[in-house]
Amino acid sequence: MKIQSVAVIAAALLSAASIAQVPSPQPTPPPGITRPLSPTEVVSNARPDEWAAIPASDLLIMTLTPDAAGRERRAIIQLMPAPFSEGWVANIRTLARAHWWDGLAVVRVQDNYVTQWGDPDGEDAARARALPAGLRVMTEEDYLTPVFFNGINGETIPRLDSPLRDNAFGPARFSRGWPVGLMSGSTGEQSLFPLHCYGMVGVGRNLSPDTGTGAELYTVIGHAPRHLDANIALVGRVIEGMQHLSSLPRGTGPLGFYETPGERTTITSIRLASQLAAAEQPRFQYLSTDSTSFGRYADARANRRDPFFIRPAGGADVCNIPVPVRRVLA
Amino acid sequence: MKIQSVAVIAAALLSAASIAQVPSPQPTPPPGITRPLSPTEVVSNARPDEWAAIPASDLLIMTLTPDAAGRERRAIIQLMPAPFSEGWVANIRTLARAHWWDGLAVVRVQDNYVTQWGDPDGEDAARARALPAGLRVMTEEDYLTPVFFNGINGETIPRLDSPLRDNAFGPARFSRGWPVGLMSGSTGEQSLFPLHCYGMVGVGRNLSPDTGTGAELYTVIGHAPRHLDANIALVGRVIEGMQHLSSLPRGTGPLGFYETPGERTTITSIRLASQLAAAEQPRFQYLSTDSTSFGRYADARANRRDPFFIRPAGGADVCNIPVPVRRVLA
Repeated sequence: MKIQSVAVIAAALLSAASIAQVPSPQPTPPPGITRPLSPTEVVSNARPDEWAAIPASDLLIMTLTPDAAGRERRAIIQLMPAPFSEGWVANIRTLARAHWWDGLAVVRVQDNYVTQWGDPDGEDAARARALPAGLRVMTEEDYLTPVFFNGINGETIPRLDSPLRDNAFGPARFSRGWPVGLMSGSTGEQSLFPLHCYGMVGVGRNLSPDTGTGAELYTVIGHAPRHLDANIALVGRVIEGMQHLSSLPRGTGPLGFYETPGERTTITSIRLASQLAAAEQPRFQYLSTDSTSFGRYADARANRRDPFFIRPAGGADVCNIPVPVRRVLA
Repeated sequence: MKIQSVAVIAAALLSAASIAQVPSPQPTPPPGITRPLSPTEVVSNARPDEWAAIPASDLLIMTLTPDAAGRERRAIIQLMPAPFSEGWVANIRTLARAHWWDGLAVVRVQDNYVTQWGDPDGEDAARARALPAGLRVMTEEDYLTPVFFNGINGETIPRLDSPLRDNAFGPARFSRGWPVGLMSGSTGEQSLFPLHCYGMVGVGRNLSPDTGTGAELYTVIGHAPRHLDANIALVGRVIEGMQHLSSLPRGTGPLGFYETPGERTTITSIRLASQLAAAEQPRFQYLSTDSTSFGRYADARANRRDPFFIRPAGGADVCNIPVPVRRVLA
């Protein structure tokens, strides 16, 4: 097995140790030197068994029409594992298998907020593309995952308390490879819900009690809009090709919708990797958020000791600790 | 005086109440209806005397070459008021008056991090453009503003505690229209430092003890990189035209630098508004962060009661409370 490169959600943050005027790649400490490792170095030194494979049925491959220079544009989304948002994720698999998105478009790009795609005619009953049979109807209760539901249990909750202090939005943790919030109900029961960090993918919906089907999706392209947490379903995150969604021209209509069809970017196809022949399936791994290396990585993110920094922050926002993801070549 | 529109840092967040599949502009409550106001409505209802004018000498107008379709690209940056980052801001005024940036370029766009501009040959002594005389050399101590220095005093510190809870990076406040952190020294003295929120503009530098001159600038185009706070000078924020910097193609070299000169976007000019004839000077106001309406706005951001939301968060990250800024037509 060959590891192509260490990528991270949105590629940027891991390597972004510096705003120096000169790019200065992070040096590996020379043998015998024991300075603290940078976040990138911690990840590079993680043991092979700390990386977890992402199943092909959790990878969604979104191909857009080529750009003006004819270059391919492809984004890969990792879907969340059960039990998080399970019904919406099932719907997305159904839609991908039905080739439902093919020929539809990116319809909205709102700066510092979201890029959204789906059926431009979705609100026009006469012209909307018919949805495939068998989509599940989800409820607002499904935004939350009870802590003792279906195998989610206390063991994953209390990690990383030192670098990852509670913030304005309450306690945040990592569970099964994902950033989650922790909410206590009136009778003391606890629930988890995924968080709106940069690159996360969510399900557009209309006003409550609608919860969306999964046909209309968006990804976060700005500062984490955490006020949406537990108000809307999150289903995954972009793990490769984020730049093809984040650098699109902003729409000039209300909420960043494009005002004319010509401004939209057409979706060539969206497929699950598991729909491809085995040899064509991209393979990815994420650094287990229960691993020792992930804990060290989070600590290094919270206390930057790279030569560029003069004052470590002593803490990190959960969305400033993107889960490391890497592509694997067979 | 005519108010053209209520704009907000990065334009997006104020109007971004919804990820609905249909754009649903926020309705004004009908007369006699007393439902809580949305953030946008609070700002619209602010009294005229709660808005503060931005001096023309604090407005930096950055004009890029037109885009592929020939459309004008212009971003307007509000510089920070004294005493924050005062020496670097003075340098930027000196550079603008010298037309120093004209013909230079955007050299780096790193996804979920920064867009950076300056002299592409800045690190090549033989080819670098000479800096104007009189630039001040700043120290690392200047990243911090002592609370009792030069008129900054306790009155602006303790506001908004309810919606704006402390987070992983320590206490955050608003002072003189800007998001700031609060740091206590070993002898109890307190200092303020501006925060790396989306759209903030900072000063590129090399390794410590270099602090940069102000010739090399960047703006934040992703989730707030708060680990940079108090490690690098912030000098302002983009208040109009952010999309021209945030939607540029990402660079494919290390740290998002462009690999070839042809990928760069050329800067036509950077000028202070005060360098223009009075009739040509754009005029802007910001909502005073000491005003009653700003407190209500922050509370509405932290407890979203727009019809779209089913669960108010009860708190907001300081970078999720962008200071409202509006353009004023004479």
